[in-house]
Amino acid sequence: MGREGFGKLFSLKEALNLLFEGRELFPTEKITVEKALGRILREDIFAKIDVPSFAKSAMDGFAVIAEDTFVATQSNPVHLSCVGEVVPGNIFSGTIQKGHCVEIATGAPIPMGVDAVIMVEHVERVGNQVIVYKATAPSENVIQPGSDLKSGSIVLYQGRKLTPEHMGVIRALGLEQVLAAKKPKIAIASTGNELIRPPAMLREGQIYDINFFTLQAAFENIGCEVVDFGIISDSPETLTKMIQEMNEKSDMVILSGGSSLGTSDYLVQAIESLGKVLVHGIAVKPGKPTIIGRIGTKWIFGLPGHPTSALSNFYIFLKPFIQSWMGYTKYFPALIEAKLTRKIASTIGRYEFLAVRLEKTGDGYTAEPTMKGSSAISSMAFSDGYIEIEENVEVVEKGTNVTVTLFSA
Amino acid sequence: MGREGFGKLFSLKEALNLLFEGRELFPTEKITVEKALGRILREDIFAKIDVPSFAKSAMDGFAVIAEDTFVATQSNPVHLSCVGEVVPGNIFSGTIQKGHCVEIATGAPIPMGVDAVIMVEHVERVGNQVIVYKATAPSENVIQPGSDLKSGSIVLYQGRKLTPEHMGVIRALGLEQVLAAKKPKIAIASTGNELIRPPAMLREGQIYDINFFTLQAAFENIGCEVVDFGIISDSPETLTKMIQEMNEKSDMVILSGGSSLGTSDYLVQAIESLGKVLVHGIAVKPGKPTIIGRIGTKWIFGLPGHPTSALSNFYIFLKPFIQSWMGYTKYFPALIEAKLTRKIASTIGRYEFLAVRLEKTGDGYTAEPTMKGSSAISSMAFSDGYIEIEENVEVVEKGTNVTVTLFSA
Repeated sequence: MGREGFGKLFSLKEALNLLFEGRELFPTEKITVEKALGRILREDIFAKIDVPSFAKSAMDGFAVIAEDTFVATQSNPVHLSCVGEVVPGNIFSGTIQKGHCVEIATGAPIPMGVDAVIMVEHVERVGNQVIVYKATAPSENVIQPGSDLKSGSIVLYQGRKLTPEHMGVIRALGLEQVLAAKKPKIAIASTGNELIRPPAMLREGQIYDINFFTLQAAFENIGCEVVDFGIISDSPETLTKMIQEMNEKSDMVILSGGSSLGTSDYLVQAIESLGKVLVHGIAVKPGKPTIIGRIGTKWIFGLPGHPTSALSNFYIFLKPFIQSWMGYTKYFPALIEAKLTRKIASTIGRYEFLAVRLEKTGDGYTAEPTMKGSSAISSMAFSDGYIEIEENVEVVEKGTNVTVTLFSA
Repeated sequence: MGREGFGKLFSLKEALNLLFEGRELFPTEKITVEKALGRILREDIFAKIDVPSFAKSAMDGFAVIAEDTFVATQSNPVHLSCVGEVVPGNIFSGTIQKGHCVEIATGAPIPMGVDAVIMVEHVERVGNQVIVYKATAPSENVIQPGSDLKSGSIVLYQGRKLTPEHMGVIRALGLEQVLAAKKPKIAIASTGNELIRPPAMLREGQIYDINFFTLQAAFENIGCEVVDFGIISDSPETLTKMIQEMNEKSDMVILSGGSSLGTSDYLVQAIESLGKVLVHGIAVKPGKPTIIGRIGTKWIFGLPGHPTSALSNFYIFLKPFIQSWMGYTKYFPALIEAKLTRKIASTIGRYEFLAVRLEKTGDGYTAEPTMKGSSAISSMAFSDGYIEIEENVEVVEKGTNVTVTLFSA
């Protein structure tokens, strides 16, 4: 019976340490900027040009020699002669002398010979005469070259997931490619003779496969590519052959199930015949019957068959490990502080993952525990996120302020 | 000059009210479950089957008649006769009588005639004899039909963005399609004669188009489909013709720019010739020179040309409006509490959007304001999120606890 032989359980921290120790950064690839949104940047980006590349006007108004306006006041205005106009995309080609000004639009290049822009609100125009009622300082309303991005300076750091804001910088520089983490190819299969997929109809004793689809979605959400290896029957020969194929055709193998009689042993044997089992059993709740192994340089994970256990393992160690593997180091988790709606008894020595539903209250949020057994997918589907209870905590009292990690982010 | 005539500015709240009042829910479509991840669910989903559909074992062990074990203790064990075994996906077809038991694996159907499962740890097996050392209550270690999802009960609520957890429920029920919000088709163009896109090289006075790409990414991130209408030159004829075409080929029109001489007027005129301008100028900072109009039943937005202004308008009113339009009502914003690193002076009467960079400190986070002018895209690209400063606030002191909305979520 497979379940008798867990031996020493690894703590979550030990399991994570093992993964992070053996970690090499996942390879990179050049991608076109059209496909860069949401990808993990793996190069520091330096500006090769000044943005903007020329001095331009921050306002609609008149480009002036600031010195000409120094004495201007409401009662003693200065009269300038308007010698032309300049709009964005054009260059003023005339010559400017003392006492001249040029009508200028927001974003237009500052003509040679002037050094400030006076806002349209502070002047009066009479034919070609511009009457200035206010002194203007040099550089006023002038956006200097490089004031947004300076040539030679670092403008984006590696380790970020590219957002709309980052895309703006990349486009401002006119870049056509960036270096990003490749998408890890994850081979996923569910094991179990009881599993079927639509359009097959359920016969007695059968259930629809859940884990492939929840894990597929979870991995895709963090930027992986998933290869579907379907449902594997619980026989040692099939298992070994399939694992070998999955290992060859992917960067990481994920199996779930193997909770039926002896299958846990089969899985251990299959992995041992191809590589090495490093962990068999983690002190987490739910999710204890977990296998971590290596075949060559690639990782293989045997997750529990219970849907909640498989998915909670994804959140507590697969997600942080894969993000780190892809070089995604600069991010902030989406957290919400909430008050626990009831007392929770936790198991000493087991790190606990507790799914909760959030409700908005007058001035904050409440977190209602939703777990109703690790075999139930509904408990997680009715939840907005989860709280984590450390190994050494036995009771979390009703009303405690807890930190909820949102599933959606 | 276009900038003179803003007239009365709308407050952010007034602009949002106007949008939400005129709001009709965006249409739905049936989609296959393969494409459902991240889509907005627009139907309540009821279970048409029990999940699980049969009683099954929660443990590896022996299926027993609980009554047979009531007297069992460590010193007075009960001897049962093992008459077979059952694994997941199979049905035990034998007959069970008093004193019998069946070896059972986790997930296997409970045979007819037994009502509990005793864990493998609490028995000893000698040939076909199973020696039970512990009393077992009826239903112990039995997962009842419908204990996860009960036929006829509601299992998913409309208004959610479908997550891996939700996909699990959908798959557990064997569903092949769900009703989701269609993806709104957003027509986006940038206006300005100074704008170019690679591979064209910058000539003096030109800049690379930023706004199309930041807005495209931002709209795609919230589940919209973007249609690229490129760069429109600042002429009234082109503008009217283009807006008409964009309006016909999309569900919403987004223009940015129009900050050059007279263009703001052109845009107002063009919209008025095809429909109606409802708002011209919003009391927000940055982002004041914003136009909201309607052509037929469709909305059109004229956003400022400054990249930061265009994008902050996206976050403060386009994103909430479009999420509501798609029926995405049940979500929690990703927020982080942080301490402001320096004093901020804000403009009375203007709602302010202030991008900040987060830093992890010993026990929390600090928020460092990064804004360096609304024309600078770098200020937002170096930020992790933003804080909002209400219209009636003039100063936010250094060290104030502020709530940062993350860009990433």
